[in-house]
Amino acid sequence: MEKKKRVYVFGKKSAEGAANLKDLLGGKGANLAEMDLLGLPVPPGFTISTEACTEYYALGKNQLFEILKDEVEQGLKHIEKILNAKFGDPTNPLLVSVRSGARVSMPGMMETILNVGLNDITREGLIKKTNNPRFVYDSQRRLIQMYSDVVMEKAAGIEPEEGKGIRQQLEAELEKIKQQKGVKNDVELDADDLKKLVDIYRAKVKEVLGKPFPEDPMEQLWGAIFAVFQSWNGKRAVSYRRIEGIPDDWGTAVTVQSMVFGNMGDDSATGVAFTRNPATGENMFYGEWLPNAQGEDVVAGIRTPYPLNEATKSEHNKHLPSLETSMPEIYKQLVDIRNTLENHYKDMLDIEFTIQERNLWMLQCRVGKRNGIAAVRMALDMLDEKLIDEKTALLRVKPNQLDELLHPLLDPNSESKAKIIAHGLPAGPGGAFGKIVFSSKDAVEWAAKGEQVILVREETNPEDIDGMRAAAAILTARGGMTSHAALVARGWGKCCIVGASDVEINIQKKEMHSAVGVYREGDVISLNGTKGLVYEGQLSTISPAENPYFIKFMKLVDKYRVLRVRTNADTPDDAKTALDFGAEGIGLFRTEHMFYGKGGEKPLFILRKMIISNNETERRRALDELFPFVKEDIKNTLKVMDGLPVTIRTLDPPLHEFIPKNLEARERLAKELNITIEELNNRAEQLHENNPMMGHRGVRLGISYPEITEMQVRAILEAAAELVKEGKNPKPEIMIPVTINENELKHQNEIVKKVYEEVKTKYELNELHYEFGTMIEIPRAALRADEMAKYAEFFSFGTNDLTQLTFAFSRDDVGSFLQDYLDKKIIKFDPFQIIDRESVGELMKIAVERGKATRPNIHLGICGEHGGEPSSVEFCHMLGLTYVSCSPYRVPIAKLAAAQAAVKE
Amino acid sequence: MEKKKRVYVFGKKSAEGAANLKDLLGGKGANLAEMDLLGLPVPPGFTISTEACTEYYALGKNQLFEILKDEVEQGLKHIEKILNAKFGDPTNPLLVSVRSGARVSMPGMMETILNVGLNDITREGLIKKTNNPRFVYDSQRRLIQMYSDVVMEKAAGIEPEEGKGIRQQLEAELEKIKQQKGVKNDVELDADDLKKLVDIYRAKVKEVLGKPFPEDPMEQLWGAIFAVFQSWNGKRAVSYRRIEGIPDDWGTAVTVQSMVFGNMGDDSATGVAFTRNPATGENMFYGEWLPNAQGEDVVAGIRTPYPLNEATKSEHNKHLPSLETSMPEIYKQLVDIRNTLENHYKDMLDIEFTIQERNLWMLQCRVGKRNGIAAVRMALDMLDEKLIDEKTALLRVKPNQLDELLHPLLDPNSESKAKIIAHGLPAGPGGAFGKIVFSSKDAVEWAAKGEQVILVREETNPEDIDGMRAAAAILTARGGMTSHAALVARGWGKCCIVGASDVEINIQKKEMHSAVGVYREGDVISLNGTKGLVYEGQLSTISPAENPYFIKFMKLVDKYRVLRVRTNADTPDDAKTALDFGAEGIGLFRTEHMFYGKGGEKPLFILRKMIISNNETERRRALDELFPFVKEDIKNTLKVMDGLPVTIRTLDPPLHEFIPKNLEARERLAKELNITIEELNNRAEQLHENNPMMGHRGVRLGISYPEITEMQVRAILEAAAELVKEGKNPKPEIMIPVTINENELKHQNEIVKKVYEEVKTKYELNELHYEFGTMIEIPRAALRADEMAKYAEFFSFGTNDLTQLTFAFSRDDVGSFLQDYLDKKIIKFDPFQIIDRESVGELMKIAVERGKATRPNIHLGICGEHGGEPSSVEFCHMLGLTYVSCSPYRVPIAKLAAAQAAVKE
Repeated sequence: MEKKKRVYVFGKKSAEGAANLKDLLGGKGANLAEMDLLGLPVPPGFTISTEACTEYYALGKNQLFEILKDEVEQGLKHIEKILNAKFGDPTNPLLVSVRSGARVSMPGMMETILNVGLNDITREGLIKKTNNPRFVYDSQRRLIQMYSDVVMEKAAGIEPEEGKGIRQQLEAELEKIKQQKGVKNDVELDADDLKKLVDIYRAKVKEVLGKPFPEDPMEQLWGAIFAVFQSWNGKRAVSYRRIEGIPDDWGTAVTVQSMVFGNMGDDSATGVAFTRNPATGENMFYGEWLPNAQGEDVVAGIRTPYPLNEATKSEHNKHLPSLETSMPEIYKQLVDIRNTLENHYKDMLDIEFTIQERNLWMLQCRVGKRNGIAAVRMALDMLDEKLIDEKTALLRVKPNQLDELLHPLLDPNSESKAKIIAHGLPAGPGGAFGKIVFSSKDAVEWAAKGEQVILVREETNPEDIDGMRAAAAILTARGGMTSHAALVARGWGKCCIVGASDVEINIQKKEMHSAVGVYREGDVISLNGTKGLVYEGQLSTISPAENPYFIKFMKLVDKYRVLRVRTNADTPDDAKTALDFGAEGIGLFRTEHMFYGKGGEKPLFILRKMIISNNETERRRALDELFPFVKEDIKNTLKVMDGLPVTIRTLDPPLHEFIPKNLEARERLAKELNITIEELNNRAEQLHENNPMMGHRGVRLGISYPEITEMQVRAILEAAAELVKEGKNPKPEIMIPVTINENELKHQNEIVKKVYEEVKTKYELNELHYEFGTMIEIPRAALRADEMAKYAEFFSFGTNDLTQLTFAFSRDDVGSFLQDYLDKKIIKFDPFQIIDRESVGELMKIAVERGKATRPNIHLGICGEHGGEPSSVEFCHMLGLTYVSCSPYRVPIAKLAAAQAAVKE
Repeated sequence: MEKKKRVYVFGKKSAEGAANLKDLLGGKGANLAEMDLLGLPVPPGFTISTEACTEYYALGKNQLFEILKDEVEQGLKHIEKILNAKFGDPTNPLLVSVRSGARVSMPGMMETILNVGLNDITREGLIKKTNNPRFVYDSQRRLIQMYSDVVMEKAAGIEPEEGKGIRQQLEAELEKIKQQKGVKNDVELDADDLKKLVDIYRAKVKEVLGKPFPEDPMEQLWGAIFAVFQSWNGKRAVSYRRIEGIPDDWGTAVTVQSMVFGNMGDDSATGVAFTRNPATGENMFYGEWLPNAQGEDVVAGIRTPYPLNEATKSEHNKHLPSLETSMPEIYKQLVDIRNTLENHYKDMLDIEFTIQERNLWMLQCRVGKRNGIAAVRMALDMLDEKLIDEKTALLRVKPNQLDELLHPLLDPNSESKAKIIAHGLPAGPGGAFGKIVFSSKDAVEWAAKGEQVILVREETNPEDIDGMRAAAAILTARGGMTSHAALVARGWGKCCIVGASDVEINIQKKEMHSAVGVYREGDVISLNGTKGLVYEGQLSTISPAENPYFIKFMKLVDKYRVLRVRTNADTPDDAKTALDFGAEGIGLFRTEHMFYGKGGEKPLFILRKMIISNNETERRRALDELFPFVKEDIKNTLKVMDGLPVTIRTLDPPLHEFIPKNLEARERLAKELNITIEELNNRAEQLHENNPMMGHRGVRLGISYPEITEMQVRAILEAAAELVKEGKNPKPEIMIPVTINENELKHQNEIVKKVYEEVKTKYELNELHYEFGTMIEIPRAALRADEMAKYAEFFSFGTNDLTQLTFAFSRDDVGSFLQDYLDKKIIKFDPFQIIDRESVGELMKIAVERGKATRPNIHLGICGEHGGEPSSVEFCHMLGLTYVSCSPYRVPIAKLAAAQAAVKE
């Protein structure tokens, strides 16, 4: 029995803890101590440390009881002394709440028990003291209801049938008594009813759970303490931790605090507030309150909460009295507290308070959650207010929150008043309004006439592409987050809601039916793609990207950022979008993109001819035919990126990917190519691979068929040469994929050097800038980076493939077991989303060290999808890479992650 | 112009070089110098170093000429002085040969020019000196023929049309003159004819090549020297080097040596000899000679060479006179030289000699090539003779040569007399005879009656398995080295020839037609599967494995070996074979083997039921049904390996591999499983993977379906428990494949521990030995070996998969580009055959270090196919692995490789 401190008291400036002891006291306990030290009115109490929780799981209930007993008793005495009341005392009883509190907030995931210490004896004392029997009986029946559920059933590990839990059974009794009295609301029950209910509850608890409700206050207290510990491993809490990445061994603290009551009459109240507006970031005290109510009533949504002050009244609550006018002296006290807290914590805070008979009590304070828009504004405002410095301001915004600022949004004020038509999955963020159209064709036509339209479809397919492009937003009744509509919309950064299963679409009648009405072609609706909500009518939108706060914030980001940020872009359009978001070059231009989608039919057909070729002569003929398309394609993007580096990857996928799979398309192709279907099938069969990811692709094609590399290199260099002639400054970088050793690079580099001389001669140029480099995406290439760097002027880490090979996880197939691996905690995260520093990261580190050993000034980048993921960007910064490359819409996010990594260093 | 020595003279004990200067002087030059130093009769000469060859390629012909000129002239003077003759002298001319010689022998790959220095003037001197005009004219026309081909055409880079080379055109002239004279053989042409031919040759050379044949002896000499340098980069030489792994930058030396003539009459002769028999290893001087002949005549096969001595006469040459009887004093001199050389070199040597007018001259000596049987015997004999020590004896046998000793062989004596029926690919080594049968059924039936049969088929397929097993050997008319017959036969170590395209099989008539005859069912034939030769009739066989030399040699191997050698075996039969070859355990027992082949139908059917299961209950039911089969299967092998470790790998392949591919088989399966074909297809579709190698397999199945692991573990432990009860000493090791981190091992280990307790209780045992470990076959596992070793008591490197993932080479698909990669020298060797130390090897090294850091006494093995490849075995020894595991027939090979690695250390 080690003699360490496990219980920390607070109240009347007596706090033994402080805000910096969150690990030990949990967020709630630490902040209560801090507020107490600041001299704010905090009901006295004590916090049992998270270490005790760990001991609870290691040693068991009985042993922990022995360890904690004395300290808890001392804690109780401390409260009793401050309040001059006594726990379990028949005349002047003290009641306490028992609450959980982990290092980080896990809202609603663990248990709370109120009114502990109430029994038939103490209630009489309390009735005398408060002169409010109804309140006391109600408190008692609430205690029984909570306690029997949380302590006697959940913590005891009893798993009742669905709907047969003790809580439901007691609620049924409450309903019964209401029916008997013929009333609808709980508040209509009087003291006698509630007194009767207490007895009914106790009998029911004994009947259902087989043991009596404990009347002994100390037994109640200990039961509650252990139940909170037990709730740390409740199902909800465990699954929440898994999602949020919270370690299981942190444990929860338990705070035992004297009860204060906001429901003791009209001079009592309860409320929650943010020190600034968490949705807009505006520097306005913002909150809600309810007179004669308990904390849960404010959030439960049974009564509409009142506005905290006059300035922040909304359409919903403008008719209701504010605290500012109802209790001006209390409101003034609260404003002072707000200022004290912001000055002390130097951040926006989320607070809970209770007013008991005109006495203000602070029950909670913590750093408040905020959306991205608010986060950016608050950071900049506080910087202006000199509350924080630039580095702190940078760290105040989570990189992913910037995503919210990159799309038009529905105005939250207009949203709060609007009528919701339907709910769906938030597939493409942002907000938009427009007239309903039910076909892609209509979308294109209406848009051409200048109408803003929303394309509404059962589901979309590739033929809808043009309509989707023309529409302001897309709504589908079916499909999930990876459906066609979702994928396309996200790629474009377009507002989109999919799988809105509560609407029914009638294409013939051009009608959309929802629970709240029928909407026809031309009717205006609005979509919130960030939340998945469909509204009736036109809501106003705001364009946060033009927000001066965003622009100012990105300037701050660029000031501290070391890592460069490029984009993965295959078209001039993508390149332009990325430039608008501040991209500093293209890190990955995939030549093969040009064969997909619109405009790709002709080159794809020629490519297929090339693939079907039986010999080099035929292949060269097809390549010659393909050449002008490839050159044009590359030139267009080089032109947009004038003066910035553009990394062009030579053909990467295995050739068979370009051969159509279905019979009909094959027959058409065979006919077009003037060969028999058998020949085509034979060739396709020859090209078939069991594991194409590790097959004949990338540089391997360029080794087998050097003429394929040659054509591409010529296209790149001629495109650049033509631009030079046009007075531009193209900076192409030729990148060879799927490499494993220096000989491949030497072989390909010889082709490049030869073509380079030819192009210089043809265009009569003395020189033409280009770089030659390679992907590092295969473990061997990473390990042999020293030899790769002999020829490569740059490396670009292809972390998608590197992850596939390091884990032997086929990205196409991992779905069959990835969820099992996450559920069973075999892996902590999806390595395709976040770089696994322990393996892929180690290979990258090796490659960086060895590459630099050969070529100290080698350029190092990353073009896998990790390039836009904040933790991975941080890792790239730590590795000393030159740049990351990500999709256009993630450029600002990557920039912020890079700046934060630099600041944290 | 660095002043280093480039020319090294020899002759009359003047040698400036020696045998240890092979790198500089080439094998030929170094050994000539060594023989000269030993006082043996060596025609004087000089060697131009290999460094000059490198300079030739770096600096070009003209610059090198300036560098070499003085030294070459000095060298010539040296010869002239010894022989008292003069190069280019009209009365007493010196003739020289110009020969190539690399560090290692590259037989026939580079050029030789004889009789250099002969022209119309010197020939007259030579005629006077030899009094043999026919010989002199013949020498001159040979010079022109060789020189115009090698120097004027090949070295000049002229590429004539097929069959239109100068050599062929000159040969046509020779034919013409023979026709005119009406003779058949060259020797029938007289001096005048040959003189005329010299003129015709010269005219033809000028006509075809556009320049005259050089008459200046010095021009001839320099032309020859540069032509030899040039031949280092000839097509044949380059491709030979690629196959043999000889670096391109070694270069060749050039030896210029005074000519001696074995064709100056009956007192002249030429011959080649081995100091011991290279086929059997017998300590007998063994060779061939021809009187009045030049070196090339002995090997050209135009005349049957004579036997060297009486003791080694064979059926083929017993009627011919031996050197021993023809020139006893010369023979005695040669025997002395043989003894001198063997005592000096302490090895068997391959020598070339020429007798010119009863003077013996040594032209070459080098360590002689030998087959495996001879290598073993010579090593042991020389050890007994105290010529070499044990370690040297061990190093004298190449590990792969042992393969020859593991299969019955045709007796070479009986082979030399037999009639060859057909040639094919040597698919399964060894020799066998038997009666021809044309069907698998007949093979089984005849064998059952006690007949020894050869199964002759167009091609084999899986239905032939039983017949192939029953036959003594297999012969197919079609198929390559990876055809079904070849794969199966090699696996069994059975004699097999495939692709014997010169036979035609008529199944109806039960006849086999070849160029030499028709063979019918029941006719006896013999096969040499090591060489791919089919003989008529019954040849005697020998069983070298019973050879006391083999047994003795393996004892020596085991004395020096540190690394243990286990086998990969899935059946009791394989296990027995491996035990016979000295296996020290099983390193890889694949549970899935039991579902393939004969006896596997029933369990396969149950397995398929398991795979098609929709839920855990169904799956568990199928697993329960499968359990007894698995237990029995494992028990049988554990029993055979009593007392030795048996590593049993849990199910490795993805489940879809067990679902039949073709429709008919699927329909049958659906019917048997009582589900619709649609259901079956759906499930198969669900299981389909794009890259199954990186899909849902190995431990991933055991994580998703722990009950699959549980069943297997129970089968292993119950099998072991039953054997313990039967008084045996089973040593099962449970190996988890496809792992990437410790959590997988922890998860699986918990299943093992639970089942272990249950089995102990069931069988009332206090303990039951087993080990728990993992494959290291994924890069991540190698990098995280420290964490893997927390749970794994052993690692087994799966270098097949590790190579696939490190290179991103799919073994199934690599065929499409591997040959391109080898041809274009992108990679030096196939990494699936030899461990790539630079990448896969580094990962192994990391894994060994990190694994040992966590668990210093961890057992380390390898079970990839590299485990039987000598260079890889050496690497495993260097890494400090505990054991390698390979197929049964490679166990002795791996053992020798391991012993050699230990000795070399």
